[in-house]
Amino acid sequence: MAKTTETSKMARSAAQERKDKITIKAIEGVANEVYSSIMKGHKPDLTMPVRSLSNVSYDQKRGYFEIGRSKKVRTLTVNTVKTFAQTLKMMALSKDLIASNDFATKRDAYYQSKNWQEAKFDEQPESDTVMDDIEAMFSVHDVSREELRFVPQEHGGAVAGELTVIDRDLESGKKIVIDCTQFGSGAYSVPSWVEHLEFKTSAKFILAIETHGMFQRLQSHNFWKKSQCILVSMGGVPTRACRRFVRRLSDENKLPVYAFTDCDPYGISNIYRTLKVGSGNAAHINRFFSVPNASYLGLMPQDIIDWDLKDATHKLTEIDVKRASDALKNDPFFLEHKPWAKAIQQLVKMGVRAEQQALSKHGLNFVMDEYLPAKLKKPELFLP
Amino acid sequence: MAKTTETSKMARSAAQERKDKITIKAIEGVANEVYSSIMKGHKPDLTMPVRSLSNVSYDQKRGYFEIGRSKKVRTLTVNTVKTFAQTLKMMALSKDLIASNDFATKRDAYYQSKNWQEAKFDEQPESDTVMDDIEAMFSVHDVSREELRFVPQEHGGAVAGELTVIDRDLESGKKIVIDCTQFGSGAYSVPSWVEHLEFKTSAKFILAIETHGMFQRLQSHNFWKKSQCILVSMGGVPTRACRRFVRRLSDENKLPVYAFTDCDPYGISNIYRTLKVGSGNAAHINRFFSVPNASYLGLMPQDIIDWDLKDATHKLTEIDVKRASDALKNDPFFLEHKPWAKAIQQLVKMGVRAEQQALSKHGLNFVMDEYLPAKLKKPELFLP
Repeated sequence: MAKTTETSKMARSAAQERKDKITIKAIEGVANEVYSSIMKGHKPDLTMPVRSLSNVSYDQKRGYFEIGRSKKVRTLTVNTVKTFAQTLKMMALSKDLIASNDFATKRDAYYQSKNWQEAKFDEQPESDTVMDDIEAMFSVHDVSREELRFVPQEHGGAVAGELTVIDRDLESGKKIVIDCTQFGSGAYSVPSWVEHLEFKTSAKFILAIETHGMFQRLQSHNFWKKSQCILVSMGGVPTRACRRFVRRLSDENKLPVYAFTDCDPYGISNIYRTLKVGSGNAAHINRFFSVPNASYLGLMPQDIIDWDLKDATHKLTEIDVKRASDALKNDPFFLEHKPWAKAIQQLVKMGVRAEQQALSKHGLNFVMDEYLPAKLKKPELFLP
Repeated sequence: MAKTTETSKMARSAAQERKDKITIKAIEGVANEVYSSIMKGHKPDLTMPVRSLSNVSYDQKRGYFEIGRSKKVRTLTVNTVKTFAQTLKMMALSKDLIASNDFATKRDAYYQSKNWQEAKFDEQPESDTVMDDIEAMFSVHDVSREELRFVPQEHGGAVAGELTVIDRDLESGKKIVIDCTQFGSGAYSVPSWVEHLEFKTSAKFILAIETHGMFQRLQSHNFWKKSQCILVSMGGVPTRACRRFVRRLSDENKLPVYAFTDCDPYGISNIYRTLKVGSGNAAHINRFFSVPNASYLGLMPQDIIDWDLKDATHKLTEIDVKRASDALKNDPFFLEHKPWAKAIQQLVKMGVRAEQQALSKHGLNFVMDEYLPAKLKKPELFLP
């Protein structure tokens, strides 16, 4: 890694340099507390939020599922010594990664540990748990896992439209300018981590699309040009990198995000809800990954009636119905938003679901020529 | 679709125009036979290859799993009238798509059928079967489903490196030049269909990578520049579009393709074997989608020993072992290539599997600084 380290100082933007300093400071803060406890002859401990559904709340104003105040304290004892050491080694790895301007996936970190002698992980789930703990611990300091340079395996979706992304060569620090209007039928594949990216855009909104098939249609026919927007292909439930990309893009440019998914409990409660408020069992990270600016364009259950799609629907499966009733009973998001509860009830009552491509019934480009333009005239009608 | 049609003639490259003419000719050929049968007072029929494993062969020289000579004939009768009509309607849709320079996914085609009165499909599996039949029927005329403008839902993977892709604006026909060296940490997201793309490259080989995590490392650290290559992220078993992209790129530029996957039966027999020779149950399309120029760089079972990865392995699961013994017993590819059978036997005997990121044990960039350069010095040792 030595070669990489030498050039690392030049290779960062000023914004990245600032972020890295904050992250290093947070790591050193935790480490120093451990150190001074030991120096005083006390048992050192590490404090982190409890990661469980019982420690989650949802406040509309804040806009995402939030971690509660319950904390767990891991004190150094004979029983915790290995995990304690692993946690500190993992923090040290993070510090090294920042120093060398590099990054590691969960897998990479697990394999790196094979050199940690007694502190090595035997199985990857152990290593994942320690990483999740660290993520929760540092989320309190407003530092995300990606800022610690632990990055996901998955890419962040495909993007096209009125957007310029500014990246930097990791080794030379040279600026790289990516014009997302210049992809033809292809697209910009968002990297696994996006903290270092900068954006320039004249778009009026972001359209986050469930299926790549629909994205491909809108992209190939330059829908982004006609409606001055940025198209994002989520490809099902959006990955961490995809959600963070949309969040940063939306926040920094004050852009509304319109979600366009299938009209079924999966599209609504898994894909859209995850995009907007995050997920319950990862509440400590939703502050980074939720997209509070998101609202729901369609397909709405009412669209099936209004747009004459009845004969292009499928019956709801048992799983669909279970998913819907779970959302209505237990999901703070749907409990909070009455219009959403109503829409889901309507869907269950109709007993059918519709895919976004059902609009093809009226012609392949109907979605672009009729449906979306009509919808986009009244964004105030989109569900929250 | 009228708007689109007007500009369609300008919007094609000369190569695309030629291909489209061939496709239209093939469609009209089949349609004319049906027509003239009817005019002669005969029952018309449609002939297509039998799509089943029993009708598959593998010839090393040809380089892919090939469909055999068994044919099925669908004659117009009272029982077949609906499927017969649907097949012709689907062919007509293909012709319309070419005329308007547009495309449709399986889903789009299914929903379009809702306007075919008596010939409409009730369920999508029916529509998929007819599309598969058409695909098999036209594969005999060397026309692929993508050339019929029926395109997959999925994108074609992520690409970066020494490559320029030339695309065209679907509506204006304007050339779009995409420089795949200019993506920073991101990448070029390959579209769902790639027949219309043109390539310029000075690369010496294509590196097809199983995981996006490994791709991200090689891409961010400009491995493609150091080794003058093109990086492709397959993200597991490569999609149709990904395989076709690699195939065309490799054929047209005479580039070898080196596959880099996990060392386990899935990486070898599912990912690599599918990339190289295609799959048994879609043998009628392998002539378009297989990549005969592919060879296998690693991880090899022997790499686990040679590169001291033993403590970074996982035990083979029951599924792994079953997959391996299936490959050894039934897969024509592994039956044909003895060195492959040997390698798989060695893996089963060792009882472990290794992920490509296991190399991180020796340092995050060891793969780039040591492993790949050493391997690339002796491509003659790669398994076929």
